[in-house]
Formats: sequence, C-alpha cells, structure tokens
Amino acid sequence: MSNKLNDKAIKVNGIGVEKINNVLEAVKPIETNYYDKAQARLDNLTKPRGSLGRLEELARHIVAITGNLKPSIKRKVIFTMAGDHGVCEEGVSAYPQEVTPQMVYNFLKGGAGINVLARHVGAEVIVVDMGVNHKFEIKNPNFKIKKVNYGTKNFAKETAMTQEEAYKSLLGGIEVFQEAYQNKKIDIVGVGDMGIGNTTPSSAIVAAITGEDVELVTGRGTGIDEATFTRKIEVIRKALSLHSPNPKDPIDVLSKVGGFEIGGIAGAILAAASKRIPVVVDGFIASCGALIAFEMCPKVKDYLIAAHQSVEAGHMAILKYINLRPLLNLEMRLGEGTGAALGISIVEAAVKIFNEMATFSEAGVSEEL
Amino acid sequence: MSNKLNDKAIKVNGIGVEKINNVLEAVKPIETNYYDKAQARLDNLTKPRGSLGRLEELARHIVAITGNLKPSIKRKVIFTMAGDHGVCEEGVSAYPQEVTPQMVYNFLKGGAGINVLARHVGAEVIVVDMGVNHKFEIKNPNFKIKKVNYGTKNFAKETAMTQEEAYKSLLGGIEVFQEAYQNKKIDIVGVGDMGIGNTTPSSAIVAAITGEDVELVTGRGTGIDEATFTRKIEVIRKALSLHSPNPKDPIDVLSKVGGFEIGGIAGAILAAASKRIPVVVDGFIASCGALIAFEMCPKVKDYLIAAHQSVEAGHMAILKYINLRPLLNLEMRLGEGTGAALGISIVEAAVKIFNEMATFSEAGVSEEL
Repeated sequence: MSNKLNDKAIKVNGIGVEKINNVLEAVKPIETNYYDKAQARLDNLTKPRGSLGRLEELARHIVAITGNLKPSIKRKVIFTMAGDHGVCEEGVSAYPQEVTPQMVYNFLKGGAGINVLARHVGAEVIVVDMGVNHKFEIKNPNFKIKKVNYGTKNFAKETAMTQEEAYKSLLGGIEVFQEAYQNKKIDIVGVGDMGIGNTTPSSAIVAAITGEDVELVTGRGTGIDEATFTRKIEVIRKALSLHSPNPKDPIDVLSKVGGFEIGGIAGAILAAASKRIPVVVDGFIASCGALIAFEMCPKVKDYLIAAHQSVEAGHMAILKYINLRPLLNLEMRLGEGTGAALGISIVEAAVKIFNEMATFSEAGVSEEL
Repeated sequence: MSNKLNDKAIKVNGIGVEKINNVLEAVKPIETNYYDKAQARLDNLTKPRGSLGRLEELARHIVAITGNLKPSIKRKVIFTMAGDHGVCEEGVSAYPQEVTPQMVYNFLKGGAGINVLARHVGAEVIVVDMGVNHKFEIKNPNFKIKKVNYGTKNFAKETAMTQEEAYKSLLGGIEVFQEAYQNKKIDIVGVGDMGIGNTTPSSAIVAAITGEDVELVTGRGTGIDEATFTRKIEVIRKALSLHSPNPKDPIDVLSKVGGFEIGGIAGAILAAASKRIPVVVDGFIASCGALIAFEMCPKVKDYLIAAHQSVEAGHMAILKYINLRPLLNLEMRLGEGTGAALGISIVEAAVKIFNEMATFSEAGVSEEL
C-alpha cells in the first residue's frame, strides 16, 4: 500500500518535501482487527446489542484508529486555519476581506462561535495564520503563524499559489499539529477554517477533483445574492478552464485554485493520521482539506470522522467521494470548526460509553432470552 | 385557548384530578413575540446570518419558552421513568421482565448508558419507579417511588390499567417533577424510559391515537426475531380491537393499552411546561408520553424538543403527528433518556452561542457589504 503521491512529491523541488513524505509514509492502515474485539465489549454492556447505533460505530472506530481497547479522550484540539483569497477581487463574497484578520482577533479574544462551542465541549482552539492578508503582532500561546503569503493570488487571472507555496501550506499544517502534539499528546483533532471568500476555491477544488458540475457544488457561502452567486459560478468555471488543474494531482489543484488554509488543513489531517489520532472534520472547507489529504494518501480516510452535513452545496459531493457519513445535520454553515466541536463531543460520548458502561455480569442484569 | 381534556378530566372521580387540572391550566402559550428579539441578537453576533442553523432555532426557542432574553441552562435533570408490562406474558420482548428492576439498580449504581451520557453532558438523572414489578428498598436521593402498581395488566386480555391508575401515573410524573423543581430550579428537563416490553404499549398508543396501521408503527424493540415481531403486531391488533380505545381520549388510550412510565413521562412533561421549562424528549417511548401530554394539552407542543430520531418504526409517526423535527439521528434505540442527554447538550450549546458570542461591534468585525 503506497501513498498515491509519494513519487510525484519526491520529484518536486519545493522545501520540506521530505518532511511531507515522512508524514505520508507514517500513515498506516488502522487496526481493523480491533473492530471485533471492540464490538464484543459493546455487546457485553448493559443495553440491547447495537442499540446505541452510531455511538457504537464511533467507539469501534476509535478503538481501531488508536489500536487501544481502553481509548481515552482527554486532550481535544481544534485547529482553526485562516487564509485570504485573491479571488475576492471578483466580488464573490458577502463580506469584505478585512473580516478574515478581524475574526482572527475575535478568535483570540474568545468571542467567536468556535470559542463558545470549543469551551462547551472542553476543546482547545489553536488559531493558525496560514496566509491572512494582515501582519499580526500578537503573542498568544493559541496563535501560530505559518503564513505562506499575504493571501492567495486571484485565480480568475493567475494560479492561486505556486507549487512551492502549496507545499508550504501543507507543511504549515503538519508543523502546527506536530508542535502542539510534541507539547502534550493530543487524543482527538478537529479541523476548521476561516477565510473570506474561501467557498469559491473550495467549490473549484471539488469540481476539479470529483468532476462534478461547478453549479452543483457551489453554494451561497456566507449568504450572497443571486447576482453574486451567478458570478461566483462563472468565476470558477472560467478558472478551471484557464488553469486545467489535473484531477489526479491534488497539489496541482491546490496550487491552481486552492487556498493556504485548505492546504494547512490537509497537512494537519495527514500529520494527525500519521500519529494515529482521529480527526473530526468540520464542514465544506475543512472537508476540502480532507479531500486534498485523501487524494495524497487514501489511507487517511480511515482516520476521518465527518462532524456534520453542511448546508453548502458542495459538501455532500466531497463526503460521497471520500465515502464518509456525517454525524450531525444541524443545518450549519459557519465553518471555523464549529461543527467539529459538536462532533468531538459525540465521539467523546461514544468513547465514554465504551469505557464506563457496566457489563451484564458487573451489573447483575440478565441477558437476552 | 382551553386544554382539550379539561372538562373530561374534571368529571373523572379519580384521585388528584384537581392537581392535574391545575397543571393543565398553568401551561401557557410560549412568548413567540420574543422570537424576533432573539433573532435580532443572533443576527448581531459575529457570524453570517443564520449560519448556525438549528442552533439559532434552538436559541430562539429557549428564549420564547422562558420569556427570557438572557436564558441560562444550569440545572439539567433527566427523569428516567420505569415500569413493567403485563403484556410481556405474550412473549413480545427479547429480554426477561426482571431486567426492568435490574436496570433500575444499574441506573442507581451509575453503570447504564443514561448515566454515562448524563455525566458527559452534566445532567442529573432522577430514576422513578412508576410501576416496576419489584419492591425496591433503596434509599438514594436520585430514586423516587411513585409506584402505581406492580406492572400493568396484560392488555391482550384486559385493560392495562384502570382509569384511576392512568391518572395516578400522570400524577406521579407531575409530582416527581414538582418535588425536584421545588428543591432547586430546573432549567431543562429530559425524559426517558425503562420498561421491558414497553415498545408494545407504545406502538399500540401510536396506532390508537394517530390511526396509523399497527404494522407501520411497530418495530423490533430491543431486538426481537421475525416470529416474535409477527406475534407482537398480532397482539397489538387484537388488543386494539378488544378494547377500542377512543382516539380522542388520551386517558382512555393510556388506561387500555398504555404503561405507567408512559403516563409518568406525560405528567412530567406537563408539569415542566407549566413552569415554562423546555423538555427534551428522548426516543419512541418518551415520545409516546409526549403524545399523551399533547393530546391532553396541545399547547405543550411548544415546550417540546425532539432529541433524536429513533430507529423504532413508530417514532417518526409521533414526531410527524405532533410536528416535531428531531435534532439528531444517531440510529439509537436504547431509551432511558440517552438521546435526550445528547439533545440537552446541543440545546445548551445553542444557549451558550446566544449568550457568549461577541457582537460585530464588540469584536470590531465589519458587517456584510
């Protein structure tokens, strides 16, 4: 089982390619032989067999990912990756671009949706500047600067980034995970995004890789009107025809129509999987990062948990393509990792069920007739 | 707006009818004029409008239920109501009847699914003996005895309970809520069930009230085989034809084919609604309790939040009939309040979003273009 892009990756003269390859090689198949062992314990707990549905599925999954029959979820970390997008010039978003850095400040003050939901589920938020068009001068242990550039280029006119920048964005995501992990073991990761305009590159990536029609994978983002929506589809169509990204080459797709935070998310996912850490993927943009990671290394799929079904049109196309079933459908479309936070709480519930419920014999409860 | 059953209720010579009527009369319409005020705040928080989907809907709902623009969810209480069922004689369950009291002991030792999930979401569990076929001699502040009888009668042969017992079961549920509330204000209630065989009365109640075909609202319960499933449908069909419960009279339905824990759940729901407390309803059996409460007092609907979509066939019929949309679908079918526990956590998340997120001006974030 080799990782799809290994050879191609080695040929690129970018920086840090070796580090990326090391991560790709370290992604191992999950321990599917643990499924039966996990299910045997689940079937012995004081409940009808299978009656906890997807909680049981999640418990088995976490056991197989970690290769541990006593898994525990203590440290929960959500990486919220931020980047800006040159394609905003084309007028594809309902919000001005300066909202990206403004929201980064909001994250660091604890006032955003992701902060509230992360606190609710007991998760840390690590905010990463992957390529915001703003120079941050903040010291905050939960803020990491892995800036590839001050926003991508306008991919309606030129490629969003160079191939080297695409690698840099992956590396940034890898490093930010590795640094956090080195500090203290992480038990579960969530990935989320912030970037005004980033549903446009996301729809472009999905269309390029899955071959779906642009119109079917393009949505209203933060809430654009009809005219903007039509323009957005047009911009993506033209860009795909201008750059012809190679659907088999995720780095090519990422560099031509991607975003720095999307590359960062892909990198963090790969790095987490390489350490056997489950990754709860937020909505549309985070799933785009997962799609890039999956195309680079299909084995990564088994480490992924789709937190929720986003309202954004293209999200379902990604989930179907990778073959993931979302846990929740609360009609959310905020991003930031907000869906991932709620998903992490469901996964934690499943692990607690697995660890803490009494067995029939422990509780003195009669089994099935 | 009068409560459907008021007059009828007053006519009954049962005990405590006055107390039930007081509760029914105290259920007031929710403050729908707060929806707009709540939405105005939600629209001012640092996120695109509507982007938190059902969390925003829940936040508005809680504001309207409580009539409070600064709602808080501190004390969360799940009532797990237990009862036994004479109809088990007909061989309709996969588990022996003694499992009901065994599970009550398990609840009180903290080893059951509901204990694990309630701890996960920070909720208390109050276990209620509504009519278990066992004499409990336990002192535990989280255990309440409101025993109507030692199990219902076998409704394949005679009515499950007398009309007086039906009222007693409602009263038990009302009292158990009121006692807990008197102790200390409750901010949100969950309702769940335990009772071997109780999907049989539940399917009978749904068929009787909604008029749906028995086969369409009968499921596999704890996991019965084909032969038992066929027998279960047959038992329900015959009982409905034997007793002809009046679909317009929920007390008649409850007494002829119901269960004590189902009456208890209905009572607790009514009592919570009378105090403007939101009620998160678990799965199939708890929703049957909600259905009885709704038939007694349609206004109660606005206090209900359907936690999840159960796997049990009849559940969707109830939700459609009352017009409730479940929050979660994790393919669960355990009961006990397990789905309600997870639902409570989602509601709490919504309230925290409402209270804790920064507004655009607080965070210095630019608004829509």
